[in-house]
Amino acid sequence: MPATVYFAAGADLWPDYEGPIRRHAAAAGLDIALDDAAPDPAAVDVIVTAPGGVVQDYAPFTRARLVQNLWAGVERLVANPTLTQPLCRMVDPAMTESMTEYVVGHVLRHHLGIDVHIHGQDGVWRNTVLPPVARNRPVTVLGLGELGGAAARALAALNFPVTGWSRSQKRIDGVDCLAGPEGLATALSRAAILVTLVPDTAETESLLNADRLALLPEGATIVNPGRGTLIDDAALLAALDAGRIGHATLDVFRVEPLPPDHPYWAHPRVTVTPHIAAATHPDTASAVVVENIRRAMAGAALLHRVDRGRGY
Amino acid sequence: MPATVYFAAGADLWPDYEGPIRRHAAAAGLDIALDDAAPDPAAVDVIVTAPGGVVQDYAPFTRARLVQNLWAGVERLVANPTLTQPLCRMVDPAMTESMTEYVVGHVLRHHLGIDVHIHGQDGVWRNTVLPPVARNRPVTVLGLGELGGAAARALAALNFPVTGWSRSQKRIDGVDCLAGPEGLATALSRAAILVTLVPDTAETESLLNADRLALLPEGATIVNPGRGTLIDDAALLAALDAGRIGHATLDVFRVEPLPPDHPYWAHPRVTVTPHIAAATHPDTASAVVVENIRRAMAGAALLHRVDRGRGY
Repeated sequence: MPATVYFAAGADLWPDYEGPIRRHAAAAGLDIALDDAAPDPAAVDVIVTAPGGVVQDYAPFTRARLVQNLWAGVERLVANPTLTQPLCRMVDPAMTESMTEYVVGHVLRHHLGIDVHIHGQDGVWRNTVLPPVARNRPVTVLGLGELGGAAARALAALNFPVTGWSRSQKRIDGVDCLAGPEGLATALSRAAILVTLVPDTAETESLLNADRLALLPEGATIVNPGRGTLIDDAALLAALDAGRIGHATLDVFRVEPLPPDHPYWAHPRVTVTPHIAAATHPDTASAVVVENIRRAMAGAALLHRVDRGRGY
Repeated sequence: MPATVYFAAGADLWPDYEGPIRRHAAAAGLDIALDDAAPDPAAVDVIVTAPGGVVQDYAPFTRARLVQNLWAGVERLVANPTLTQPLCRMVDPAMTESMTEYVVGHVLRHHLGIDVHIHGQDGVWRNTVLPPVARNRPVTVLGLGELGGAAARALAALNFPVTGWSRSQKRIDGVDCLAGPEGLATALSRAAILVTLVPDTAETESLLNADRLALLPEGATIVNPGRGTLIDDAALLAALDAGRIGHATLDVFRVEPLPPDHPYWAHPRVTVTPHIAAATHPDTASAVVVENIRRAMAGAALLHRVDRGRGY
């Protein structure tokens, strides 16, 4: 009997994923009946979904052993009371790599002061202000999950003194890992450059509010490729206007696309990037989907299963 | 008897170096008589120099056991026929770190397409073109000495497939090291992003001429923090005008500061940075100077001694 897999992640994604999922299943010797058409809910073994997914009511899928999200963020799925089946978020190795590259690229951009030169192609030889070496530029990473942990390790490998902070205590070689409310204050106070990669939960809503922004060193830079909800936008804009925060590079927003009249676009101390830090790559993500289908059918422990209590 | 050390690197540098050299000498228990005033040449044990140094004729320094340059580049010193004393170039650990940070920062900037967003803060959500992950973006590093080797290692650690090329065959874990004329053609043909860190010698003058630029893949990016003389400027400008080369980020030039009317400044495919990739840091460089004074006085092998035959 093939595993019945309902691709409910939306018509936009079906052409990107159908081939890779079939190919990885064939390579794994896994027999699947994959379709994006609405099936008999009671016959479905696995549902593949995404933020634009087509299933709102998961209750009729009584046999489903796995709801596999194609995105790392599962806020909306966790908030859906009909979804009681085992839920897994995507941890795509290519997504982790993309995120690491985005974080290291933008941290180095701010560390080196590259923008001064990109904007300064006017014949003036601006060689008087040299950056310190990375080992004298403290970076703090909030969130030490798959993405934050990988970014912290990559920054430490480039000699940045890295402080990491997470809800529960972590251990990462070369990173000073802190936890809890006191740990957060210490982590913020050290951050010449702050990277925010905590998950979006009730606890992290407006994590960077006026009080916490005030803990950052004068002129600190913020790089937020995590979640738009982590930032109290009015408080950040006030801190940027005052020059207390030197720059913010923001990839995620409470409303996306960021509306053209949002003050972030025109702010000289803000760089908006359009939620590109870590896209899911269909080929590598499909390999994860297939492995989790195999595990679900075999009754084995699922990869990256969501803990409903924590919310991620 | 203290070692007589003549600081001949110029009045500009004396205030930056006097304190650090004295401090490192004291810490090492090394007795030195350090001065920047012209001494009796025959009494000098060590000459510290730099590109703007004040000694032109080294012949009268008959007792000198060491001429220590404060810069990595020694072209002018090697070309000085009066300089027959042991000559050492500076390999400052902080300089190697700065160079690595510059190279990784600018390679990631081009890899991620950061400029599109820095220039595009206009309310348009440009999220359709995503970069590949680094492991699908081949980078070539020409020159695998102290600086090129460190840059190649750091890029490989970020998953870039790195090809390295050097005059003599090198071995670096995770880097495909090539050598010789055929190796150069192969290395250039692979370079989605090319980093040039070869020393400035007669052999490397205009290394990137029209023929070699033609070997690069269509749309390749060049990052040159090495030497201005490596590039045939007219050939590069022609390749940029034709769009054959996608972008060049250049830190070094045949004439510095780069004249305000030089076509590089205004070229939309060129980013000029003002010879900032790897400045010498007085504190860490002074530690190297003091260690070489100690070795010179003890008759031990000198660090980073220049091979006059190779020219570096």
